[in-house]
Amino acid sequence: MIDLRSDTLTKPSRGMRAAMADAEVGDDVYGEDPTVTALEARVAAMFGKEAAVFTPTGSMANVLAVGALVAPGQEVLCESRAHIVRAELGAHGALTGITSRTWVHPDGQVDLPTIREMYAPDMGMYFVRTTAVSVENTHNFAGGAVLPLADLKALRAWADEVGIAVHLDGARIWNAHVATGTPLVEYGAIADTMAVCLSKGLGAPIGSLMLGTTEAVAAARVRRKRLGGGMRQVGVLAAAGHYALDNNIDRMTEDHANARLIAEACGVDPASVPTNIVVVDVPSAPEVVAAAAEQGVKLGAVGPRRVRLLTHLDVTHDDAVNAAEILARLLR
Amino acid sequence: MIDLRSDTLTKPSRGMRAAMADAEVGDDVYGEDPTVTALEARVAAMFGKEAAVFTPTGSMANVLAVGALVAPGQEVLCESRAHIVRAELGAHGALTGITSRTWVHPDGQVDLPTIREMYAPDMGMYFVRTTAVSVENTHNFAGGAVLPLADLKALRAWADEVGIAVHLDGARIWNAHVATGTPLVEYGAIADTMAVCLSKGLGAPIGSLMLGTTEAVAAARVRRKRLGGGMRQVGVLAAAGHYALDNNIDRMTEDHANARLIAEACGVDPASVPTNIVVVDVPSAPEVVAAAAEQGVKLGAVGPRRVRLLTHLDVTHDDAVNAAEILARLLR
Amino acid sequence: MIDLRSDTLTKPSRGMRAAMADAEVGDDVYGEDPTVTALEARVAAMFGKEAAVFTPTGSMANVLAVGALVAPGQEVLCESRAHIVRAELGAHGALTGITSRTWVHPDGQVDLPTIREMYAPDMGMYFVRTTAVSVENTHNFAGGAVLPLADLKALRAWADEVGIAVHLDGARIWNAHVATGTPLVEYGAIADTMAVCLSKGLGAPIGSLMLGTTEAVAAARVRRKRLGGGMRQVGVLAAAGHYALDNNIDRMTEDHANARLIAEACGVDPASVPTNIVVVDVPSAPEVVAAAAEQGVKLGAVGPRRVRLLTHLDVTHDDAVNAAEILARLLR
Amino acid sequence: MIDLRSDTLTKPSRGMRAAMADAEVGDDVYGEDPTVTALEARVAAMFGKEAAVFTPTGSMANVLAVGALVAPGQEVLCESRAHIVRAELGAHGALTGITSRTWVHPDGQVDLPTIREMYAPDMGMYFVRTTAVSVENTHNFAGGAVLPLADLKALRAWADEVGIAVHLDGARIWNAHVATGTPLVEYGAIADTMAVCLSKGLGAPIGSLMLGTTEAVAAARVRRKRLGGGMRQVGVLAAAGHYALDNNIDRMTEDHANARLIAEACGVDPASVPTNIVVVDVPSAPEVVAAAAEQGVKLGAVGPRRVRLLTHLDVTHDDAVNAAEILARLLR
Repeated sequence: MIDLRSDTLTKPSRGMRAAMADAEVGDDVYGEDPTVTALEARVAAMFGKEAAVFTPTGSMANVLAVGALVAPGQEVLCESRAHIVRAELGAHGALTGITSRTWVHPDGQVDLPTIREMYAPDMGMYFVRTTAVSVENTHNFAGGAVLPLADLKALRAWADEVGIAVHLDGARIWNAHVATGTPLVEYGAIADTMAVCLSKGLGAPIGSLMLGTTEAVAAARVRRKRLGGGMRQVGVLAAAGHYALDNNIDRMTEDHANARLIAEACGVDPASVPTNIVVVDVPSAPEVVAAAAEQGVKLGAVGPRRVRLLTHLDVTHDDAVNAAEILARLLR
Repeated sequence: MIDLRSDTLTKPSRGMRAAMADAEVGDDVYGEDPTVTALEARVAAMFGKEAAVFTPTGSMANVLAVGALVAPGQEVLCESRAHIVRAELGAHGALTGITSRTWVHPDGQVDLPTIREMYAPDMGMYFVRTTAVSVENTHNFAGGAVLPLADLKALRAWADEVGIAVHLDGARIWNAHVATGTPLVEYGAIADTMAVCLSKGLGAPIGSLMLGTTEAVAAARVRRKRLGGGMRQVGVLAAAGHYALDNNIDRMTEDHANARLIAEACGVDPASVPTNIVVVDVPSAPEVVAAAAEQGVKLGAVGPRRVRLLTHLDVTHDDAVNAAEILARLLR
Repeated sequence: MIDLRSDTLTKPSRGMRAAMADAEVGDDVYGEDPTVTALEARVAAMFGKEAAVFTPTGSMANVLAVGALVAPGQEVLCESRAHIVRAELGAHGALTGITSRTWVHPDGQVDLPTIREMYAPDMGMYFVRTTAVSVENTHNFAGGAVLPLADLKALRAWADEVGIAVHLDGARIWNAHVATGTPLVEYGAIADTMAVCLSKGLGAPIGSLMLGTTEAVAAARVRRKRLGGGMRQVGVLAAAGHYALDNNIDRMTEDHANARLIAEACGVDPASVPTNIVVVDVPSAPEVVAAAAEQGVKLGAVGPRRVRLLTHLDVTHDDAVNAAEILARLLR
Repeated sequence: MIDLRSDTLTKPSRGMRAAMADAEVGDDVYGEDPTVTALEARVAAMFGKEAAVFTPTGSMANVLAVGALVAPGQEVLCESRAHIVRAELGAHGALTGITSRTWVHPDGQVDLPTIREMYAPDMGMYFVRTTAVSVENTHNFAGGAVLPLADLKALRAWADEVGIAVHLDGARIWNAHVATGTPLVEYGAIADTMAVCLSKGLGAPIGSLMLGTTEAVAAARVRRKRLGGGMRQVGVLAAAGHYALDNNIDRMTEDHANARLIAEACGVDPASVPTNIVVVDVPSAPEVVAAAAEQGVKLGAVGPRRVRLLTHLDVTHDDAVNAAEILARLLR
């Protein structure tokens, strides 16, 4: 079975498991787990941020990050299909109590003119004020779209001008980095806070990090505990993160190549597949999903007439070739 | 002084005050205030809704109404400058815990193609689901824009098709009614819930109502009490509401004429002023506001280079003529 | 019909209505209603507090006050039957997100030794910290119990020692004042924040106030608006408040005498009835309530075998004598 | 260094690490991780409950469980020092929005007469209603106190009588089980929901479970995702849980014996040390903590004149003997 439903499906490799088994650990609630402390420092440094905190999921990292920038009575602006408003069960409203407004862009891109128009400055205490813009790179529900660095820099410059913050949901920032060659620190430089994920394309079983200033991260540690994310001997998970960073970033170029290969077979322009996510319009999503599964390829339906597939660490080149053939036949 | 900052500034007239002084009252927490009970029934009937509940403010009416349609983990869609996301201090996120997403329309109109694109159906329990669209008529921050009934009906038809609800923020629905001649029941027919206000153009000192099904209104009464809106001898306020409905709806045509008169003097196309709100772009809003105040006309700044003025019950035709002259001179 | 169910049932008198009809008003959201501004200053001064803010209900005043002292992740301590935890629909948890812990006292009194034992100092960011104790005087669900000033002073002294705040829910502080002769400023002196009510024994139709420091009250104004309590021409209600303060405080001695008179008739020791609330244990509360109503006396059931009655402004001495006779016969 | 600050400090053993390294895994968000699914079924069966869901922490398990029984506007009753109100950063108020009231018992026990007195039945929609009582066994902040099964059964019988639920915070239920010989199913039988922890005395690095009905657990899975607890390849952690259940329950008798041994050396009556927690009153907690640390024994200060120590998996009998000697000398 070739499972293309999500890159969250990746399983820890033997090497990663060995690293986990050997991890030095301590009680992280006391700040005494050396492996996670090192991982937090390492990832913060990779993006040029002051500090980082490990979380059990990317959703929690986003909740902590956005909550560090936006208080109840304030708002975050983001693209309409952003993960933070679509796929986190409304946590930002339900748990943090903030307001969100969205711009709608067909390709999930940063639409600065519209953002500037939407921006709500401080008009006194009776109005909701914009305090952050959140961007997602790559943009999951926009088909793994990459946000051009130039756009991010322009957003950053404008945000500085008006005095608001930028959050970068970088669950798949590694894919953007590999696809464009943009150094990670360049991404870090445009963001006040970030969320990055170890358990998607990087292949760790569990774990994300929220990045920001020392102060924002310290406050996030308290909120993490309230959310029930204050785990104990986290080193067993952090060791997988170290292993993933050591071994699994650069190889994502293969995932991207595999995605383009499958896209082409499905009649999708490979140039429209920047990273590891392929979206295919089909006559009937449930039928295609069922038929593909029967032939050994698992896809996901993301609409009545749209399927989605993701390549990742556990999909080899041969898998991709096979899947491409099967899907090509099926969609003909 | 001619005060054009807001139509919330209207003061109760002698007749209204007399009605308040004579009001029959009871303890409304026990459901024993006959005047407010009658008002609730009256307003519900005016819009063809099953029931209504009186609230101290329009914000509370909106919070109760949207909260009746959208739960934490679900979302409401609305136009980007809607009062519910811009001017209620984030209550919908902070108190109800819901998610909001917005479409951006330069004139505050219903953009059904975009709404259809944004719509998030039930994709399983891990995704935020759209359960309501909220529309505002007239649209305050879009310059008192009227939403055409045809657009509202098309929205309603589509909402029925996909099985979601429509909330109508009708704080100024009376202005839309007077401006277009659309019967109030036609507005009621496109909405599952409504909020209507007695204390803006209608001239009551305090009071709004949330309208909906008997069941939704019963639940709203409980939430109203939790929010601290379960007042006692409400009849003293409800009597003002009755008086306003008896006397102050049709006369809004004067406010609209006055608004167009002032608009023209300010170089604004009167055809772009559908109701009682005029937005004027100026070189410097603070300077214009200060200069106008010095000459006896109060305006509001709603941006660095934009002022806003509203006509209402306490602005006579002569006031309008005077204000028009003063502003024309000032803006020349 | 003699209605003893609650002192919230009082209706505005002719004099009070005249005051309301003549009230000078303005838009209080703009801070321009002179009557409510004067009332806020007047009540603050009566208790020696810096500032006050008018609210539509006592529940909202309590929510604003406790919220000024206790943040999410912190806690308030109060007696087990306090109105804030029993009768405000859980607003403090649901809207403010705070934690409450309670001590249990049979007479609703301040139990300082237990409070000291319960007190949670700052033990680091991972523990809930006590930041306020809330006391209720008179204590509604403890039968209108008066909290002795000496106990309140001892609480205040200890609170100062450990650095926490005291909230006084003074919905019926007027009854305590009249019953004991304690000057209002003495009550104000033991509290950081207070809530006082105009619409119970004082006879105003609507209105309470939250009192505190200038800073706490300014923040409460913002939260009041978010809760939907930012009303417009509030002077019509504030005028009733002024009238109540002018005319209806001292006369509460009559209510207390009436309560003792009825208590005695019901076989309750009048010495156990400090103010205007009488609690009577009966064989069957629903039966007693029904039988009394048939004979023209309305009571409330507050348990399967417990009824409660309150005297107030609209219960004359003759009413009390009649009610006493009816109840005495009925309970024999 | 002998570390007695907490039993959360336990580190995974070689055997446990090997089990983790060999774990079969899948994406648990898709319900496809066989190891965690088996663990959930196993633990549910151990306590005779229908279902269970794995969580990253005991705090999250408690938040999910109490939230399954108590909605905003309702309340949970618990002992004053219960972990849920003292040590979860106010999550139940801040995230779930519920009300809590407490009884105060010097030994952390179930005080049924007081609970019955506190109990708030359904008195209509304007009152907070008790829907659950939460008990903690063993009771952490009451020195590891065991709640007698007879008391729990009496509570259960009364709860059934009035129609409310019981939550059992069983973070250390294993200690109670080992100390008393009470079968785990007996504990399960008195509870509607439970939280049990794998990462304290049982020695797993990470992990707790929330137990309850199939329906309650299904709803908890959704809320877990919103809280950011929907992890992916959880089998790596669940394998540690299986190992802990296989190997580390019965051996807790050693921890209890070690605790009594150290207690005696500290002048604490061993009969007052039912499980693995020892509380010692000392002249100065900071001084004792510092002096003990210098001599190789880590303790925790839980008050200005009170220290606490816990025995656990990583404290051998020799460690306990050494610690006892050091502390005896120090406290003499």
